[in-house]
Amino acid sequence: MTAEIICVGTEILMGNIVNTNAAFIAERCAGLGISNFFQTVVGDNEDRLAAVLKTAMERADVVILSGGLGPTEDDLTKEVASRLCNRELIEDAEWRKRIEEFFALRKSVPTENNWKQALVPQGCIVLDNKNGTAPGIIIEEQNTSVILLPGPPNELLPLFDELVVPYLSAKNPNVIVSKTVKICGVGESRVETMLLDLIDNQTNPTIATYAKTGEVHVRVTASAESEKEARKLIKPVVKELKSRFGDDIYSTDDETTLEKSIAELLKANSLSVTFAESCTGGMLSARFVNTPGVSEVYKQGIVTYSNKAKRKYLGVKKGTLKKYGAVSEQTAFEMAKGAAREFEADVAVAVTGIAGPDGGSEEKPVGLVYIACNVLGKIEVKEYRFKGDRGRVRDSAVSAALTLMRRCILEHYSEVAFGDNVK
Amino acid sequence: MTAEIICVGTEILMGNIVNTNAAFIAERCAGLGISNFFQTVVGDNEDRLAAVLKTAMERADVVILSGGLGPTEDDLTKEVASRLCNRELIEDAEWRKRIEEFFALRKSVPTENNWKQALVPQGCIVLDNKNGTAPGIIIEEQNTSVILLPGPPNELLPLFDELVVPYLSAKNPNVIVSKTVKICGVGESRVETMLLDLIDNQTNPTIATYAKTGEVHVRVTASAESEKEARKLIKPVVKELKSRFGDDIYSTDDETTLEKSIAELLKANSLSVTFAESCTGGMLSARFVNTPGVSEVYKQGIVTYSNKAKRKYLGVKKGTLKKYGAVSEQTAFEMAKGAAREFEADVAVAVTGIAGPDGGSEEKPVGLVYIACNVLGKIEVKEYRFKGDRGRVRDSAVSAALTLMRRCILEHYSEVAFGDNVK
Repeated sequence: MTAEIICVGTEILMGNIVNTNAAFIAERCAGLGISNFFQTVVGDNEDRLAAVLKTAMERADVVILSGGLGPTEDDLTKEVASRLCNRELIEDAEWRKRIEEFFALRKSVPTENNWKQALVPQGCIVLDNKNGTAPGIIIEEQNTSVILLPGPPNELLPLFDELVVPYLSAKNPNVIVSKTVKICGVGESRVETMLLDLIDNQTNPTIATYAKTGEVHVRVTASAESEKEARKLIKPVVKELKSRFGDDIYSTDDETTLEKSIAELLKANSLSVTFAESCTGGMLSARFVNTPGVSEVYKQGIVTYSNKAKRKYLGVKKGTLKKYGAVSEQTAFEMAKGAAREFEADVAVAVTGIAGPDGGSEEKPVGLVYIACNVLGKIEVKEYRFKGDRGRVRDSAVSAALTLMRRCILEHYSEVAFGDNVK
Repeated sequence: MTAEIICVGTEILMGNIVNTNAAFIAERCAGLGISNFFQTVVGDNEDRLAAVLKTAMERADVVILSGGLGPTEDDLTKEVASRLCNRELIEDAEWRKRIEEFFALRKSVPTENNWKQALVPQGCIVLDNKNGTAPGIIIEEQNTSVILLPGPPNELLPLFDELVVPYLSAKNPNVIVSKTVKICGVGESRVETMLLDLIDNQTNPTIATYAKTGEVHVRVTASAESEKEARKLIKPVVKELKSRFGDDIYSTDDETTLEKSIAELLKANSLSVTFAESCTGGMLSARFVNTPGVSEVYKQGIVTYSNKAKRKYLGVKKGTLKKYGAVSEQTAFEMAKGAAREFEADVAVAVTGIAGPDGGSEEKPVGLVYIACNVLGKIEVKEYRFKGDRGRVRDSAVSAALTLMRRCILEHYSEVAFGDNVK
């Protein structure tokens, strides 16, 4: 089975945004065992879009389009696809209601244009979009399914996983099963080197590595006639990975993020946590709060951006700041110590660093970050030197803080088998 | 003049990497006033690559390819392009020498395959690649220039800027200039409706809208024989946009984000700021800290995730929490009041809400968020009902908080012309 991806949007053609939708869709297709031979980007232009879509429909089993479903005059993906498939656009009463509700909730009034989003090609499958006013649409033609998806990633991603993945799985005769082994604190090239023999000999299951900030995900994918069969193929490979990476693996569950695995670790050990942040300015706390239900272990955190705040709210000594500076091992240590005390937490993580672009020196360059983790009074501080711009340094610091935090808790509670997280 | 971009690489088709090369090339082309109507990704497959390249050569003045110039058997971009252009591949003596030097410098030995990289199509322009062993190549055909570039970004980017940009500039007579008008607090379809007459009549300059979370960007683009001429075309349109959207426009500068415009507003009025966050858990503070140099106005902020923390650190009254709940107008009000007092800030922004997926009720559904902004003691509270998942609700809350904050400061300092931010 082959899929072709078409992304519609002038902002991609102008280079204003990077086409992450195509990468996301391609990754999902690969995971489902669907081959992707072509990706195309085209603007909101009727003739050009029609030409591209026509070609794609001639050569692929599934054509997946993203973008051009908005309420504006420019958006014409739905119109072009309907015309090529000889379908009329008709109003979907349910979706019209959804648009009404959407605006009522926001206490705002839809414009004439918004009603356009309730129009769908006759006989299509309407896919619920929980995060926007444009529904996803599947038009099933004799030889091709044409899938239209909204362009904004926060709409496309959940819609794709919830509704398009099951649709594609059902179409693809072979069952494809993937398991992702999530590793933190080990670089991508080291992971690859450690897996070279497995990667070189891969056929079924296949092994692919994906680098994320501070993490590497290794995806093991097997194709078989039944799910059971596929799982049987995957099992020994995952076992081998576990023996090679040990507790650098934080999860093998698709839904579990690094922060979620840590929240579970804290809950399992009845530990409360707090964060004291300087250069990350709240990012670490915000990322931890991505996980629902953390209120059980997280009550309060603080951003101490100034030296005065580090002294006043965390009890960092004036002399420490003067002698070693705000970005130092010593300051990070005292921040983590003070945070646990002030905020009555069992675990405290402190971050202080130079995110740039200014503020660096030869001795303390941009990218220098100290992270301290205090677990029930035992404090470990690590120095990091991150590369990249301000955003990249802060992202890297947050991932490193989570990784350090996890390691410190595991070390403190070595009796808690990490295997609890990895099933 | 039109350019078409073809990126060759299985790793893009598999979704292992995001196609940043296409975005880079597209942005450069846009900057040079070269229109880009199509981008294609294709694998290292002779027939498919030839088909894609043939189509591109028929419709564009310049075809820019990246990838497939490596030394391996898989790499065949050069071979396919040469065949389509009826050119023989001949050895470039100088480039052979460069390969020898390249390996000598690294004290390693080239393999047989590496010499393949010294072969170039007869009569082509060879572009020096300072960071790798594959030269860039320009094949000039009667109606099209075909430009072949190495895939690794660290080779492609410098080579493009040093050698391809001058080549394209010389070929293209026209200059393109864009200006982005950034609007906050007005929905996309409302913006569109307010611009319908302008959009319907657009030719040069063109007008396009881009929706961001809580913002809409309107880009005005003109093409002319000189930059001065293009700017002259843009000016009256931007003026018209300013008169229609007034101070909902926070900037017309590409580099200025909403948070940066607020940081500037605070600095201009010598105001300090603090944040007290519940459901956003530090995201608002983290986003504000995206802007370098905010330490001048931002000293500390707090995440009060529990009721107890709201009472202890912000002085929210027990009775308020009991009577109205943590997610209420009254609690948000007291959080903003307490934060300004506790953290000695002129401006305090407080966020409390239900991000979900759990914790909602009929009366207080998931997505209900209260944001309070305290400017020198005057506190405004607004109720929001956001849609979407946990991440989306929190993102929307952060954008809404920034927008509210900006409005409250502007209202307080009505003597500060918003025009200071908008030049």
